[in-house]
Amino acid sequence: MRKLKLYIAISVNGFIATKSGDVDWLTDPDNSDNNPNKYGYLDFYNSVDTTLMGYNTYEKILGFDVPFPYPDKKNYVFSKKHKQKESNPVQFIKNDPVEFVSLQKQEDGKDIWLIGGSQINSILLNSDLIDEIILSIIPVVLTDGIPLFLGTEGQKRFKVVETKTYDNSLAQIIFRKKLAQSND
Amino acid sequence: MRKLKLYIAISVNGFIATKSGDVDWLTDPDNSDNNPNKYGYLDFYNSVDTTLMGYNTYEKILGFDVPFPYPDKKNYVFSKKHKQKESNPVQFIKNDPVEFVSLQKQEDGKDIWLIGGSQINSILLNSDLIDEIILSIIPVVLTDGIPLFLGTEGQKRFKVVETKTYDNSLAQIIFRKKLAQSND
Repeated sequence: MRKLKLYIAISVNGFIATKSGDVDWLTDPDNSDNNPNKYGYLDFYNSVDTTLMGYNTYEKILGFDVPFPYPDKKNYVFSKKHKQKESNPVQFIKNDPVEFVSLQKQEDGKDIWLIGGSQINSILLNSDLIDEIILSIIPVVLTDGIPLFLGTEGQKRFKVVETKTYDNSLAQIIFRKKLAQSND
Repeated sequence: MRKLKLYIAISVNGFIATKSGDVDWLTDPDNSDNNPNKYGYLDFYNSVDTTLMGYNTYEKILGFDVPFPYPDKKNYVFSKKHKQKESNPVQFIKNDPVEFVSLQKQEDGKDIWLIGGSQINSILLNSDLIDEIILSIIPVVLTDGIPLFLGTEGQKRFKVVETKTYDNSLAQIIFRKKLAQSND
């Protein structure tokens, strides 16, 4: 079965963006070459053929001053109110995300990248559909911001699979879902 | 100069305790032997001779079903309203924490452990007095909780010094303060 992987950057204090949605803190001002996305990104990118995101995240990505960054993937955006346009590099999904993702995971293919944000992250965590969380922790404390998850239901346990350091600029942790009754 | 080190455990989503202050999630129910405090704890403990904490954290520690855990350290609790008792294993500090800690750092001795919680963490972060943040990340997502910092002033940049994995139970990241104008 295809895995659903939440691959996302966060601040030391656990925010995925500032309160206003800014992510310019991802880049270290002392080293313009250290875009955190470069660290191990290509290996990860090649392991997936599908991306999932909420509408706010999609809008944020469209606002970046670069072409749409996942042109060779199947890209799905969860939104009940936005209509598909011919020019969109994504497909809008009005269905229940839990049902949609459950079916996606059963299809053949590479893994699925959950890009964010908080709302879709929480829905899929609460349904136990997230197999891996790959956190890229940027060494900055933000004043305030948007959390990784909103309103989760009960505690969800994972296990630590690996940690990595990239330069002095990023710490990456891979968490994998802890199966019930399993000690692995 | 003595270093001030914030050494603390947090959940995947960045909380140091549940909303009600519980920290029982620190221990993995599948492995009662994996108290996160054991991982590298003794080396850290031996590197400090002083602890700092807020009153809520002190009360929480007193509530644990064990003797006061830092009997051989100088222990300071910041509180404007609580009075020292003979039996207290700590000294209450009514002075301004920033002034007190600045002076402490200039004295001779081992490093200083900032135990928490959010309020004193934020005051000392905002004053640029925290030299290292050592986060022990427990692989659990909490429903809601108490954040690592409250109301920080502006973004504070650190650098990643090291990451470690202990069993599958804990990921530890060491951040060190990034000096202005320094690329080290």
